Amino acid sequence: MDWLLTPGPVRLHPKALEALARPQLHHRTEAAREVFLKARGLLRQAFRTEGEVLILTGSGTLAMEALVKNLFAPGERVLVPVYGKFSERFYEIALEAGLVVERLDFPYGDTPRPEDVAKEGYAGLLLVHSETSTGALADLPALARAFKEKNPEGLVGADMVTSLLVGEVALEAMGVDAAASGSQKGLMCPPGLGFVALSPRALERLKPRGYYLDLARELKAQKEGESAWTPAINLVRAVAAVLEAVLPRLEEHLALKAWQNALLYGVGEEGGLRPVPKRFSPAVAAFYLPEGVPYARVKEAFARRGAVIAGGQGPLKGKVFRLSLMGAYDRYEALGVAAMFREVLEEILPAS
Amino acid sequence: MDWLLTPGPVRLHPKALEALARPQLHHRTEAAREVFLKARGLLRQAFRTEGEVLILTGSGTLAMEALVKNLFAPGERVLVPVYGKFSERFYEIALEAGLVVERLDFPYGDTPRPEDVAKEGYAGLLLVHSETSTGALADLPALARAFKEKNPEGLVGADMVTSLLVGEVALEAMGVDAAASGSQKGLMCPPGLGFVALSPRALERLKPRGYYLDLARELKAQKEGESAWTPAINLVRAVAAVLEAVLPRLEEHLALKAWQNALLYGVGEEGGLRPVPKRFSPAVAAFYLPEGVPYARVKEAFARRGAVIAGGQGPLKGKVFRLSLMGAYDRYEALGVAAMFREVLEEILPAS
Repeated sequence: MDWLLTPGPVRLHPKALEALARPQLHHRTEAAREVFLKARGLLRQAFRTEGEVLILTGSGTLAMEALVKNLFAPGERVLVPVYGKFSERFYEIALEAGLVVERLDFPYGDTPRPEDVAKEGYAGLLLVHSETSTGALADLPALARAFKEKNPEGLVGADMVTSLLVGEVALEAMGVDAAASGSQKGLMCPPGLGFVALSPRALERLKPRGYYLDLARELKAQKEGESAWTPAINLVRAVAAVLEAVLPRLEEHLALKAWQNALLYGVGEEGGLRPVPKRFSPAVAAFYLPEGVPYARVKEAFARRGAVIAGGQGPLKGKVFRLSLMGAYDRYEALGVAAMFREVLEEILPAS
Repeated sequence: MDWLLTPGPVRLHPKALEALARPQLHHRTEAAREVFLKARGLLRQAFRTEGEVLILTGSGTLAMEALVKNLFAPGERVLVPVYGKFSERFYEIALEAGLVVERLDFPYGDTPRPEDVAKEGYAGLLLVHSETSTGALADLPALARAFKEKNPEGLVGADMVTSLLVGEVALEAMGVDAAASGSQKGLMCPPGLGFVALSPRALERLKPRGYYLDLARELKAQKEGESAWTPAINLVRAVAAVLEAVLPRLEEHLALKAWQNALLYGVGEEGGLRPVPKRFSPAVAAFYLPEGVPYARVKEAFARRGAVIAGGQGPLKGKVFRLSLMGAYDRYEALGVAAMFREVLEEILPAS
């Protein structure tokens, strides 16, 4: 068996594979409209929002760009804490969108504290919930609250790419106005769809721009179960099928994902490895490489056992490795992976 | 059996379904890089270009927007003949991109003549090769030649969404500098990927902008078999598999598609129907509705026989219907569809 232990794309849910093996659905038919509306309704539940979720054909990055460009006009001031590769991406997107961006840098592995973002004079704050590049989880509710106390009119946008269906997500309850995610992480589907969740407050404040990523146009079409542009409709069917299977027992699913990730950290710590993040996201376990062990050795040790893992990104390149059980793995598969990880550590760590 | 007779999405190629039923591929692995480079190489053959083909995760519309925004800077003058819904889309995209757009209107069903575009003072000409909304095929080589005689520095961008792998396509030989297409038409794969083909001349003249659709960034990554953003890699594998099956016998495939579409026109004309286009594209057969017969009746007559067809778009809504055998249909399936079409005509046409 192939063990895909990367933090996305992940091992597919059997319901996704089943949906993708079916004949092509035409997106302008009643059957497709039903699928589309069902997926949107289930995604609304997953994001826990009273607003809307828009399904875009593209990657999570497209969803992030759509969020930024439809929420803020050029010249508006936004605050962007940077604490990993994906918050760096938010910063780049905000710059390219013509916003006046104040960047706050944190060491990779860290996350901002509420006092860091309790600053006046901003139209928005952009945060990454689960920083896949470092394994860190930002405390969204506390950060959103601190920011909004100083900026009552401000909007909080979040990257929930690896928190949706992996950790606790609740759009409005967390003080988040808009969030971006994708199909290939907690949803256990192939890559190809991005999602933008919009709270009722964000919906009132849309400032649409762009062509493909004009969210006002999407909203109008998607309320009818259609989409502005030809959607990856088979993938929408896969997303609906997975959500239908997982949402009724979401609590159990999140507990499993948390347990699995803690299991990986447990094995790493037994082996004396140092975790990268301070606050652990359940999406991925990130460790500094043991002294003197190059990433290639760890990667190869896993590869010989049939597993694909991830290395470091940005300043962490060559310094860390990352393992994830975010995909469709059950309790016993996770225990198997823990055993594999122990074997690898025995192999790569100097005998003590 | 379900007969998908719409001009995209279309009936899937068995190789596409087979590829999509396989486990998730991780895009940062050697296996994925090989798939990506293979797909790019085969797409280059399909577009017949010495330049590059970029694979974008998104629809054909995203590819059209990427083409326009990376080829022309705001303020540049472009000429956009409008003769169907997709040339209308090119016009809208060019406007949104901040270009100075001269629009030339033609009746739907018509296509521009060379003398219409032989006008000086333009940085570009945007043309739709096969106008899926009307079934018309524009004479790209003649149009490109006439335009470039007056604008030697001008660039010609083409929508080849329903001509790639359906009709004759040859980027540079046709005088086209850049073209957009997608996975869900002649490539017989599900929707979810857009392609931008760039001639060597277009590559030299790139003016990248945007974030997700910054083609310079894509080019750098895709030369290495990667992509700037997480790609719908399973779909890339499907595209590679279909191209690998079809390209070695492309001439035969194009002859089959031309014969199948002519067969549909033959049946329609036997029944006294009037075709919409003047110059026929092989991608779709479009007919005006018989006097007094509403579209819903035709649609239902096909639906009762297990088929999904397409109606009119824009000004042709409620006036025409469209049938396509662009999908994975062989000679005998096409003959079956012809028989179905005859039955439908007998049912809906007034007894003579």
